[in-house]
Amino acid sequence: MPSISCSDCYKNNSTMKKKILALVTGGTFDKEYDMITGQLFFKDTHLHEIFKRGRSTLDITVRTLMMIDSLEMDEQDRDIIVKNCQRSSFEHIIITHGTDTMTQTAKVLADANIENKTIVLLGAMIPYKFGMSSDGFFNLGSALAFAQTMPSGVYIAMHGECFDWNDATKNRATGYFEHLKKMQDN
Amino acid sequence: MPSISCSDCYKNNSTMKKKILALVTGGTFDKEYDMITGQLFFKDTHLHEIFKRGRSTLDITVRTLMMIDSLEMDEQDRDIIVKNCQRSSFEHIIITHGTDTMTQTAKVLADANIENKTIVLLGAMIPYKFGMSSDGFFNLGSALAFAQTMPSGVYIAMHGECFDWNDATKNRATGYFEHLKKMQDN
Amino acid sequence: MPSISCSDCYKNNSTMKKKILALVTGGTFDKEYDMITGQLFFKDTHLHEIFKRGRSTLDITVRTLMMIDSLEMDEQDRDIIVKNCQRSSFEHIIITHGTDTMTQTAKVLADANIENKTIVLLGAMIPYKFGMSSDGFFNLGSALAFAQTMPSGVYIAMHGECFDWNDATKNRATGYFEHLKKMQDN
Amino acid sequence: MPSISCSDCYKNNSTMKKKILALVTGGTFDKEYDMITGQLFFKDTHLHEIFKRGRSTLDITVRTLMMIDSLEMDEQDRDIIVKNCQRSSFEHIIITHGTDTMTQTAKVLADANIENKTIVLLGAMIPYKFGMSSDGFFNLGSALAFAQTMPSGVYIAMHGECFDWNDATKNRATGYFEHLKKMQDN
Repeated sequence: MPSISCSDCYKNNSTMKKKILALVTGGTFDKEYDMITGQLFFKDTHLHEIFKRGRSTLDITVRTLMMIDSLEMDEQDRDIIVKNCQRSSFEHIIITHGTDTMTQTAKVLADANIENKTIVLLGAMIPYKFGMSSDGFFNLGSALAFAQTMPSGVYIAMHGECFDWNDATKNRATGYFEHLKKMQDN
Repeated sequence: MPSISCSDCYKNNSTMKKKILALVTGGTFDKEYDMITGQLFFKDTHLHEIFKRGRSTLDITVRTLMMIDSLEMDEQDRDIIVKNCQRSSFEHIIITHGTDTMTQTAKVLADANIENKTIVLLGAMIPYKFGMSSDGFFNLGSALAFAQTMPSGVYIAMHGECFDWNDATKNRATGYFEHLKKMQDN
Repeated sequence: MPSISCSDCYKNNSTMKKKILALVTGGTFDKEYDMITGQLFFKDTHLHEIFKRGRSTLDITVRTLMMIDSLEMDEQDRDIIVKNCQRSSFEHIIITHGTDTMTQTAKVLADANIENKTIVLLGAMIPYKFGMSSDGFFNLGSALAFAQTMPSGVYIAMHGECFDWNDATKNRATGYFEHLKKMQDN
Repeated sequence: MPSISCSDCYKNNSTMKKKILALVTGGTFDKEYDMITGQLFFKDTHLHEIFKRGRSTLDITVRTLMMIDSLEMDEQDRDIIVKNCQRSSFEHIIITHGTDTMTQTAKVLADANIENKTIVLLGAMIPYKFGMSSDGFFNLGSALAFAQTMPSGVYIAMHGECFDWNDATKNRATGYFEHLKKMQDN
């Protein structure tokens, strides 16, 4: 049985129904293929369709803040993300984000010292719309789970793992996030 | 910051690399369509393919215990599942399982009082092999996350939620699992 | 250059815009998975969705005659199919049909001696809705092509080939249609 | 019954087993998404996989001539395509090709006056690898059918239709091929 012996464990009490906020910022996760130009572009977020396909019964509110490649994010864009997290009454937040500068946004969020909120950034290496080869669906499932169970803080959820905000770096050659800190075996 | 103030929070320290055991028992999750007979049947588990598609970097060991519809599970089958969990050195276990009798197996596991292990059962309403309409991929992502973060105990992970073993019942009309206990709002 | 030297070649003049009639009778082609019962069943035909996905610019009219497994077809059902072909003003007709008794329906149509019409039956071994593994999409593309180019008569289009109505038999062990007549090499 | 009253109808005798040559030149049809660069690129052709998925029983020989975007094709590239068609003993040839300059290649082939061969170019607006949204699979099914039934000559098979080589123009705004000649109703 979960022992409610500290404020962090409180979050792990699974009889607590969590309200989750999903902030959309774009990234490869939501890109689509434009058959006329042969380029990738953004239309609307696919989150609603994905929750439906996952048969999600979670209480999720979706807000699209922007739909951009994270390489194009600037200080104002990150400020919008921070402000939305700060002002929100939600204690569990996921943020879809391009993988290229996800760690930068994670740092800005951590530096803002937002209390009592579990914020999980996630992305995809292959657009969700590209079907059976996309990791987006899997990452979303794990991010939503981490958002419900991790203690307050800022995290990155990619390829099944949950990284502390200051423990992740994207390996641009392989496309994987790696731990900066020394990993202890379990 | 996660405060390591109790043994349960210990599990939430994301610098701990978790070794996960995935036990396969079958269920709709792993069913395939037999074009000759027009029926669904089992071949091998698709877990390896799914982890690859999700680009999972988790340390997961897969063991197929059986490939059956959970309606066909009997006492001996459940005993095999329990024994495999008991004897295992893994502290984080996911079990793919048919949704029809998932709560029965969860109860048998809970009654076995297996200490220091987080055991998460998951399934799918639509076979993973049926492509874009399957909830299997999403459930697996969340189950792996819950297996890493939830305190010791037995859980059911379906459609994004994590149910205590004694808090879930499958609504056979809708195909969704529902909470038995009164839900508190967050 | 195509020489319009006989009435059959007339059909091959690609500047002739063909109006095509698509008659839906069911079969594995249009089956769906019912997650509540775990069985396959019929809802509506997916033909419209398939034409859209194939970006078809053909002039196709769709009529659903029935949605049944072809093993359940009886004399009256086949009579409905024949009458619809006879009364129709369309000269190019495709019929989606279960593969199990497709040759029976083909014979009944041929025996009806319907003049000046190219009638092509097609089916699938895997439901279109099962995604990337379905042969339905491919068979439909070829059937529509054969319906535009073959001389008047009744045909079966499966796995890329066009069989004369009396030249096909379904191999129930392999799921493939085979030629009854001796094949000449080209 | 098909009347073998002219050399062109000969091709429509479905008891003639046709050997088909599939020449691969690239184009959107065979492009893939490179998750590291975020760009589309070429690896190997997917034709073999597609024939398997369509459960094709056709006698098809695949030869990859090049894997390029058709905007990059030059005179030498087109010469390679022409020579391969000329020297080949196959009488039925399909050519996967980018849609942007498909009509140019079709003209060069027609000008080469290759006798006794039915040559059908096809492409896709969405890469086959992008799954459920690709028109590639459908176009391939129809192209293979047209290659078996059309009289000698050069054609373009796109979105279900078969265009004479000099009757097609790609509408770059919509992505569809349109007829240049006046269409007669059937």
